[in-house]
Amino acid sequence: MSRPLAFAGSPIDRADHIRADPDRLAALMDWRARLLKLDGLDPVLSPEGTLEWGTLADAAPDSDLVFLGLAAGKACFAEVPARQGGSTGPANPRLWAAMAALDPGELATYGGARSLVDWHARHRFCAQCGSATRLAKGGWQRTCTNDDCKADHFPRVDPVTIMLVEHQGNLLLGRQPRFPPRRFSALAGFVEPGESIEDAVAREIMEEAGVVVRDVTYVASQPWPFPSSLMIGCHSHADRAELTIDTTELDEARWFTRAEVELAMTGSEDAAFIAPPPHAVAHHLLKWWLEQ
Amino acid sequence: MSRPLAFAGSPIDRADHIRADPDRLAALMDWRARLLKLDGLDPVLSPEGTLEWGTLADAAPDSDLVFLGLAAGKACFAEVPARQGGSTGPANPRLWAAMAALDPGELATYGGARSLVDWHARHRFCAQCGSATRLAKGGWQRTCTNDDCKADHFPRVDPVTIMLVEHQGNLLLGRQPRFPPRRFSALAGFVEPGESIEDAVAREIMEEAGVVVRDVTYVASQPWPFPSSLMIGCHSHADRAELTIDTTELDEARWFTRAEVELAMTGSEDAAFIAPPPHAVAHHLLKWWLEQ
Repeated sequence: MSRPLAFAGSPIDRADHIRADPDRLAALMDWRARLLKLDGLDPVLSPEGTLEWGTLADAAPDSDLVFLGLAAGKACFAEVPARQGGSTGPANPRLWAAMAALDPGELATYGGARSLVDWHARHRFCAQCGSATRLAKGGWQRTCTNDDCKADHFPRVDPVTIMLVEHQGNLLLGRQPRFPPRRFSALAGFVEPGESIEDAVAREIMEEAGVVVRDVTYVASQPWPFPSSLMIGCHSHADRAELTIDTTELDEARWFTRAEVELAMTGSEDAAFIAPPPHAVAHHLLKWWLEQ
Repeated sequence: MSRPLAFAGSPIDRADHIRADPDRLAALMDWRARLLKLDGLDPVLSPEGTLEWGTLADAAPDSDLVFLGLAAGKACFAEVPARQGGSTGPANPRLWAAMAALDPGELATYGGARSLVDWHARHRFCAQCGSATRLAKGGWQRTCTNDDCKADHFPRVDPVTIMLVEHQGNLLLGRQPRFPPRRFSALAGFVEPGESIEDAVAREIMEEAGVVVRDVTYVASQPWPFPSSLMIGCHSHADRAELTIDTTELDEARWFTRAEVELAMTGSEDAAFIAPPPHAVAHHLLKWWLEQ
């Protein structure tokens, strides 16, 4: 799958070498620099449905600015919101409508910026000693201000496995309680300390559906900015169809035939279920599977 | 690659359903429970070279205990060290010698426990408000004790891409300044917010070696407990051989022929370089590549 999934493939050059160079970074923070306009964590769109950019003069005087990188020779920044506003979850129809209007490159730029400023807004203190932290390296680090601690903290990326399970040509899909009616999707879960991707896939499927899987293969990955996941899409095989559903995690899980998946992916009202939306890696996993 | 890499494939059942059940968890914390013996973050080995286990009576009375899971029907715990001791890096010959003595399952158990207790030791405070946090869900969460905050925090896993780059049958390998003399390995770097695995591979190779890559494929993954990485091993192709080395990251990087890689992997003193050690995912990437 060479075509990037939603939120991947940002055209901004992260210009990593500039982050650690305070003089160069300061020189870039002039009237030519661009500031991504955000409403809290949400994007601000122009009438044409593109991201709105302002100048650094639009930022609050004492706000934290993160250096997103260079685009067309211009330094791009985003402002950390002064207060962490409410939910960081994706369940916001207005946000989804705005994101649907963006072209793939802009969606990736927005998603990466959102994850980063959200992390700063929630990490103003040192987890090691409780003192205040300050932004460092253009926003790719925070450092504890307590001279006895000085711990460095880095933006978080949480790997999540999301996986198709196949048995005799059928696919296992499940319904989380928060899903809209009739939506089924691939089972998923966070990779835990001490696990490989393959370990995490096997554990999650056993926990949620009571199924032993084998032959786990990687299919595709996607950054998911709610708040900062790395979705790792996989495929696996099961030798048995019996399910033991963990009802604290899933309302339902069942096997679907190829014909059922095919019909669901057309968006037909007659389909056995509603497929995951196109921006989700699960959608691409189902499409990939149908193309096999 | 179905054989698990070092630190992967722990035989302990993580028994996720018990974590969120305080009564059941409390009932498991009796004289039958096993406590993994640790010296700070390092393993304590029996004369036979196996992990030493004690009972919960061996823990300090007020220490935090994390629930590792169930092994042979017994609940397994590890104690969070009272103080965070010095470096969390792997560069400790005594530690490597101890780990080399462990069988693969025990090494995975130790690695996962180390990452988890180390995270607790460095996260006693809330990054959102600076208040104290307390251990929750058997150690798979910490919760802020400030009633106005109550933020939940989860153990961290940092995805890292590590990648072979191939050009006309040769492989690009590099030397980090901290490597032992003559050691070369695959280039690597953390996945950042807003990146897919494929994005991160392409960016790292461009940053460190100035090379454009295409056709990134996943090969294998491995948890790496220094302190808590998920190593994601990949392969990619380059169309051009010209290198522009980032000398702040690498002392050197160059192309090696298949014959040079083959000889290095035998451990020969005549080899052009010293290959990465067997417990590293880079070793397995080279082995996988030679088998292609």
